[in-house]
Amino acid sequence: MNSLRHLESLQKLPLPTVRALLDRAVDFRRVPRQPLLEGKKLGLVFFNPSLRTRVSFQAAMADLGGQAFALDVGGGLWKIEVEDGKVMDGDAAEHVKEAVKVLSRYVDALGVRAFAEGKDWATDRADPVLAAFLRHSDVPVVNMESGLYHPCQALADMRTIEDKLGAVKGKKVALVWAWHPKPLPLAVPQSFALAASRLGAELTIVAPEGYGLDPAVQTAVENNARASGGSERIVSDRAEGLAGAEVAYVKSWGSLDLYGRPAEEAKHRAGLRHWIFDEAAHRMTAGAIVMHCLPVRRNVVISDPVLDGPRSVVYDQAENRLHVQKAILEWMLAGERQGRP
Amino acid sequence: MNSLRHLESLQKLPLPTVRALLDRAVDFRRVPRQPLLEGKKLGLVFFNPSLRTRVSFQAAMADLGGQAFALDVGGGLWKIEVEDGKVMDGDAAEHVKEAVKVLSRYVDALGVRAFAEGKDWATDRADPVLAAFLRHSDVPVVNMESGLYHPCQALADMRTIEDKLGAVKGKKVALVWAWHPKPLPLAVPQSFALAASRLGAELTIVAPEGYGLDPAVQTAVENNARASGGSERIVSDRAEGLAGAEVAYVKSWGSLDLYGRPAEEAKHRAGLRHWIFDEAAHRMTAGAIVMHCLPVRRNVVISDPVLDGPRSVVYDQAENRLHVQKAILEWMLAGERQGRP
Amino acid sequence: MNSLRHLESLQKLPLPTVRALLDRAVDFRRVPRQPLLEGKKLGLVFFNPSLRTRVSFQAAMADLGGQAFALDVGGGLWKIEVEDGKVMDGDAAEHVKEAVKVLSRYVDALGVRAFAEGKDWATDRADPVLAAFLRHSDVPVVNMESGLYHPCQALADMRTIEDKLGAVKGKKVALVWAWHPKPLPLAVPQSFALAASRLGAELTIVAPEGYGLDPAVQTAVENNARASGGSERIVSDRAEGLAGAEVAYVKSWGSLDLYGRPAEEAKHRAGLRHWIFDEAAHRMTAGAIVMHCLPVRRNVVISDPVLDGPRSVVYDQAENRLHVQKAILEWMLAGERQGRP
Repeated sequence: MNSLRHLESLQKLPLPTVRALLDRAVDFRRVPRQPLLEGKKLGLVFFNPSLRTRVSFQAAMADLGGQAFALDVGGGLWKIEVEDGKVMDGDAAEHVKEAVKVLSRYVDALGVRAFAEGKDWATDRADPVLAAFLRHSDVPVVNMESGLYHPCQALADMRTIEDKLGAVKGKKVALVWAWHPKPLPLAVPQSFALAASRLGAELTIVAPEGYGLDPAVQTAVENNARASGGSERIVSDRAEGLAGAEVAYVKSWGSLDLYGRPAEEAKHRAGLRHWIFDEAAHRMTAGAIVMHCLPVRRNVVISDPVLDGPRSVVYDQAENRLHVQKAILEWMLAGERQGRP
Repeated sequence: MNSLRHLESLQKLPLPTVRALLDRAVDFRRVPRQPLLEGKKLGLVFFNPSLRTRVSFQAAMADLGGQAFALDVGGGLWKIEVEDGKVMDGDAAEHVKEAVKVLSRYVDALGVRAFAEGKDWATDRADPVLAAFLRHSDVPVVNMESGLYHPCQALADMRTIEDKLGAVKGKKVALVWAWHPKPLPLAVPQSFALAASRLGAELTIVAPEGYGLDPAVQTAVENNARASGGSERIVSDRAEGLAGAEVAYVKSWGSLDLYGRPAEEAKHRAGLRHWIFDEAAHRMTAGAIVMHCLPVRRNVVISDPVLDGPRSVVYDQAENRLHVQKAILEWMLAGERQGRP
Repeated sequence: MNSLRHLESLQKLPLPTVRALLDRAVDFRRVPRQPLLEGKKLGLVFFNPSLRTRVSFQAAMADLGGQAFALDVGGGLWKIEVEDGKVMDGDAAEHVKEAVKVLSRYVDALGVRAFAEGKDWATDRADPVLAAFLRHSDVPVVNMESGLYHPCQALADMRTIEDKLGAVKGKKVALVWAWHPKPLPLAVPQSFALAASRLGAELTIVAPEGYGLDPAVQTAVENNARASGGSERIVSDRAEGLAGAEVAYVKSWGSLDLYGRPAEEAKHRAGLRHWIFDEAAHRMTAGAIVMHCLPVRRNVVISDPVLDGPRSVVYDQAENRLHVQKAILEWMLAGERQGRP
């Protein structure tokens, strides 16, 4: 890593930069088309599927005067090796080093999405694909969701809370687990918890036993809360955890305790199907705004009346992806401009 | 649905609007590059494969100064649920409502292609995916082929007849069925019959017993003919139906009588393989121009000598997709301009 | 074929045109963004996967002021028939003639990638897909790698040798075979040998018995060498072939003697695994620069220390794809400009 403006996790940016990005997003909502990245090219590499991320980055580049090119690895492309020193006589026809080095000769910035593999957390928490991009790229790289982090989503989440409630600081924010038929990645809840605690929220993580965050992330969340003057607690009783909440950030994620053991995890999860965020759950809050990163399984994770109800802000939240990503792209690519974040 | 300029079917547009779009397409053929949609963004959502539609919409947006982003659902994307009120604990990870609401925050207009599923006509004729897009989108939506309709194709078809024969009104037009190894969708023949009858053609649908259009569409075609001063008839004897034809619009489609019963349909169709549009068939017409929406199976649907012969207009017809789609996009997105359709 | 500026193989271009393209690439490296193809549209049709080619063409068009649209055949598209006169009652729903004729109504130029099928060399060496594109297109076509040729790569290769060694003429160039788990296509080594011999290199093809180029290509290489004042020889002893080499172009390719017989070929190849280009191999050269078209299997085709070493030029070589392709696109599409190649 060098002096390039990579965005791996918001946690790695100075707080004033995060603040500046959040403010700048408001400018882009007011004036969507600003030719600040005239002629710039962004390469988007997807190891996993995407709708919001793909289109919002393409739209952001178009509005800023540039172009974005999407690449589906494993779709139109061959398999890519990420381990160093490997004798590549198996499936992978290309090493990530060559792919990244070459792409960074063709475009001005790269985005990469590579989820956790779901087998071994020790491996996945190293974010091997993202790490390889950061190591090898000669242009700035933005994380479009890795195993650990989803900084673009977290920035849009913070923007949304500020839009709706005026600030994050001092707000009672519940990150509340929900049941889902599959063990989902932890990137979104982890990035949300990190960002909310950093901006001074009174954060409660409401989740059943066994659904904690990565220990190092959890420690960072606690440190964030201390530094920001906010607070952080973990509660496994839903009614207790949701009491007084002004924000209910609903999200399902898999258990790290049973990571990579789908049969056991499924058995454990089977008893948790009542963790749906429905009207009864919403009544436990203080009329909280309801957030979700989408996609969401209706009537499984959130019930229709809540998702379609007056306190749901999920579409504004998704729209904010566009505005914050413009701020991120400007910061990555037009950083030399004076007076900018 | 609201006051947005959606294009579900030409049939739903006032006749003067259809006329204006056809005329405007000629302007775009004369002057292909006109920066009328500077900075506009079009999202193209494909539930089914596409070549002409995808590239012609991308090219149209480029010529008009904008950009188009293509999304392959089921390819790079997860499965999408279209039914309301569903408990989403199956394959679909996202509901069409979220997908559409979010996309319409990122782009200025949407295109959607979603064919009939081919199991149950009562379900398919409701065009559930397109209907969901029209219901949920906050930006104009253009139908890039649904189960029922393919308005962009029909507009290109009408433009082509006018180019070659001066007008549609009063022209003897045969929509002639052809054999094909599979039961194909009805969107193209239905939109063609609706448009030709509306513009006053003397339309003959030439098809074997059991290959009628959807009854409601058939009624609309008859009403169109009455209103336009044209005529409409159905003939199952090919020689009789083609006699005097100035336009032979060749197309295969499946039987609604045997819809969703592929084994029975295949048995029935087996006896109809002689319904290929070859030189013998062309000699039954009055030297008709030969049209097809493409793709076409050579020497199965149309024989090489006819498709490559002097009366084939299939490439000009395909080119007209580009010109009419520019007219459609302008109408959808630059409608506030005075004096435009 | 007509007077359109197709690029099938560099071999088919006059030498001054090749020279002009190489020179022009240097201009584009100096000034990457030149709006010479303002509003032009390029259609990229991929029958096989691509990373460098796809992104470098998209980036090139963006830098030149235009747009490129990528189509994955067999991915988002149906199967395409290339044989003429076929009764299309099998898998293919579209004939290449219609696909190409229609695409050439929508875009200003086409690129096509279609590898050899690997079954029968007599069939593959006719390059049926590329040939169909050249035959049917009404706009210029650039070969993005066919069974026989990869002219964009060869042009980038020549540009790279000139960049590093000042000239190709008179340079000792070894095209050296390497082991690989699969029999790879011959397009890259063939185009490299043709281009290097044409520009006057002292070319040695270093490969085990049974790994010769296509006989007609081999003859052309010999004729090129004679005409250019260079030389050409084939050596199966690696140390002998590499002695004195200033350029080591490492590449694996399959045996034409055992073409389409993978089991036999695998058995034959099994004894050749020591043909890895490692430090020992590099020491056999005169400190040669090391080239490879990428993707490369690390520690199988080239060892890490060589690929990451000071004489490796693979990333600059890949970057040159971008610059030469701009020169090619300008030549294809802006040919009317005076004083240009």
